[in-house]
Amino acid sequence: MQRIAFLLRLKEGMGAAYDRDHAAVWPEMLDLLKRVGISEYSIFRRDELLFLYMHIEGDFDAMWDKIDEDPVNLRWQRAMGEYFVSDHGAGEGERFPMMREVFYLP
Amino acid sequence: MQRIAFLLRLKEGMGAAYDRDHAAVWPEMLDLLKRVGISEYSIFRRDELLFLYMHIEGDFDAMWDKIDEDPVNLRWQRAMGEYFVSDHGAGEGERFPMMREVFYLP
Repeated sequence: MQRIAFLLRLKEGMGAAYDRDHAAVWPEMLDLLKRVGISEYSIFRRDELLFLYMHIEGDFDAMWDKIDEDPVNLRWQRAMGEYFVSDHGAGEGERFPMMREVFYLP
Repeated sequence: MQRIAFLLRLKEGMGAAYDRDHAAVWPEMLDLLKRVGISEYSIFRRDELLFLYMHIEGDFDAMWDKIDEDPVNLRWQRAMGEYFVSDHGAGEGERFPMMREVFYLP
């Protein structure tokens, strides 16, 4: 198991709509996340900044490839796409702006 | 148990020193954190932004009061103080810039 964290950024003023949709994520989207090996997945928000924390099994990029190619996720991303800025600030070769764990206390 | 998350911000260029010290947190500081009821405590960093995630038992502010008044923490904060910006961006009545959990998948 790995603990993974990364950032995303909403467009100005999109927080309330984002919260509303994430209080009612589609069951088939939740099933997909579980099926690829995600657990303890929290999304935290402050203003336009989102922090995503999760436990995963196996390789992050291989796992996210499976999510990306799933029709349920394609529908979900189309529904959510309007909320996000186009550039989250990911670096060269990064899928998302990943954060590195520098301390852990069990 | 509650999942808690908040942000902190380092001064420019302090990342490496912060990482080094957090790879070797004093055992008595770890004991204090466990004693007040913190577990699954991760600190993630990207550039100068820190994201702190933890599980706590009971009330966050009451717990952090216990940390704040402990002599071990006072020593630890003196040692770490130089790394942080003076204003983390906490709002009125906030101890830290707290993040709100808007989604959770067990």
